[in-house]
Amino acid sequence: MAKSNLDLVDDCDSFPYYQSDPATYFASISTYYQLRVTNHDYAVGYVLPSVAEIFRGLSDWAIDDDERTLTLTAGTTEAERSHIVARTVVAMRETNHFQVLQEWRNELYPVYGRGRELLFNVERCASPLLGVVTYGIHLTAFVRSKDGSMKIWIPRRARNKQTYSGMLDNAVAGGIASGEAPLESLVRECAEEASLPEELVRERAKACGTVTYYYIRDERAGGETRLLQPECQYIYELELPEDVVPKPCDDEVEEFYLLSIEEVQEVMSKAEFKPNCALVMLDFFIRHGILTSENEKDYIEIISRLHRKLEFPTL
Amino acid sequence: MAKSNLDLVDDCDSFPYYQSDPATYFASISTYYQLRVTNHDYAVGYVLPSVAEIFRGLSDWAIDDDERTLTLTAGTTEAERSHIVARTVVAMRETNHFQVLQEWRNELYPVYGRGRELLFNVERCASPLLGVVTYGIHLTAFVRSKDGSMKIWIPRRARNKQTYSGMLDNAVAGGIASGEAPLESLVRECAEEASLPEELVRERAKACGTVTYYYIRDERAGGETRLLQPECQYIYELELPEDVVPKPCDDEVEEFYLLSIEEVQEVMSKAEFKPNCALVMLDFFIRHGILTSENEKDYIEIISRLHRKLEFPTL
Repeated sequence: MAKSNLDLVDDCDSFPYYQSDPATYFASISTYYQLRVTNHDYAVGYVLPSVAEIFRGLSDWAIDDDERTLTLTAGTTEAERSHIVARTVVAMRETNHFQVLQEWRNELYPVYGRGRELLFNVERCASPLLGVVTYGIHLTAFVRSKDGSMKIWIPRRARNKQTYSGMLDNAVAGGIASGEAPLESLVRECAEEASLPEELVRERAKACGTVTYYYIRDERAGGETRLLQPECQYIYELELPEDVVPKPCDDEVEEFYLLSIEEVQEVMSKAEFKPNCALVMLDFFIRHGILTSENEKDYIEIISRLHRKLEFPTL
Repeated sequence: MAKSNLDLVDDCDSFPYYQSDPATYFASISTYYQLRVTNHDYAVGYVLPSVAEIFRGLSDWAIDDDERTLTLTAGTTEAERSHIVARTVVAMRETNHFQVLQEWRNELYPVYGRGRELLFNVERCASPLLGVVTYGIHLTAFVRSKDGSMKIWIPRRARNKQTYSGMLDNAVAGGIASGEAPLESLVRECAEEASLPEELVRERAKACGTVTYYYIRDERAGGETRLLQPECQYIYELELPEDVVPKPCDDEVEEFYLLSIEEVQEVMSKAEFKPNCALVMLDFFIRHGILTSENEKDYIEIISRLHRKLEFPTL
């Protein structure tokens, strides 16, 4: 059955909302453990009970089953905390506790406190175990024909990719490593994923905001399901000249298609997009007046949902 | 002292957030009464205790001080409920209970239920007493010089206007009456407030989303302060040819200025804009890559705050 645009939002922004359904929200969070850092009186992520269980008895961590907290008790600086977190997740990888840790990236993701200070870094593949906010960039590349109509460059992910294989994607997308600026991440990924020249990207790519959502991982993400993944994507768009054709430079993309708006909307309704990429397309359609209050009955709801205020500190 | 962009957001989106501070949020809502409609098990607005008190003992309304609810108990159809609400607020106007009711508009605002059904209409000036969501349109009109730089048309509100007199505003803004489509409201207000021809508006105005926030009224809004006003603004932008100059057609606008981005940012930082109009400007700056993660430290927070998910059903 064809998915509505709100269905697509529900598929990605799947964590319940306090605002619309407090009962379901509280029933849901009461099953998780808050991830905390000692002397910081708030959650930086939610952890599944099955994950928290593995931390029980570890010397640098404390579990409070009444308060439902998992607290990093040791370390007073970012460096000390990052070191302990690294030691913990390396040990968990070696003992094969979690499938997600088999996709080790050797790339650190940042976790921030309420003062926007860096609390610690964590290996990328371990971030969904901790349920912390992760950051990325997504770029929509498009061309305008002489008649004014718009076409959008849409890549298909490689069939052998471990996550969301064969699904449609945004032209360029990737995670932002700790210490990397969004624009630098964009420039790097544009070269790697679409062979777009640095000068072109720096000159023409336009920042257009963020898309934030709270995803509950399913089997397509690989590894354990039900892990909690709050995410913030920095959004860019790039109008390409008709003679610039994005080409895969690494093996993550199978092929680029140049699709009309109607064609993109059709494949979206068939759920052919990676879930968060469909949200980025919706944000593009809203910004460009393609989706309006006249043709989208869930307009107000969708716009709020694409810009979720997360429960955790963000950068 | 110069206001940061986040300060401007705080000035308008001033109701606490469950997400960032549950304790303050619950302390705050525990002082209000939920406005409900009988057989509908959820709030459609928050009402101040001083307002709820005036409903005590009225035959079509029930107050539950333990549950903190004010419920419209009579009426099973929209027409019946609207009739009772109208009768109640007319009586309150006649007995001079509330200053805000002295600004009677003879314009009805809609209140929706969770199924997006119209529950009832209420006289515009009474909506902040009930704390229900109201809807409007805001248009940013701009011109692009030959060198590519952008200038924005900014009106100053008439000095004798009862609300936010003399403050800066968006080119065109207005409330949407019950039953009116946002685009029709836009066309009407563009003629009234800026003398912009209907054909031009229909052809060139671009829908760009919504800005939603939860405002606590202060003295500048006129009438009682602390009334709760959750709002949803449909956002449009209109690139004007250099030879089209907006002109006030009614007595609500004193004068239009054509300001550079830097000039707009400067008057924003001096709090010269009506609070919600500053938010619409921020949304414009984000959409156009003028505010970015590089030059705005509160980028992520601001973007979420401009698209608040309200506690109440919206259209």
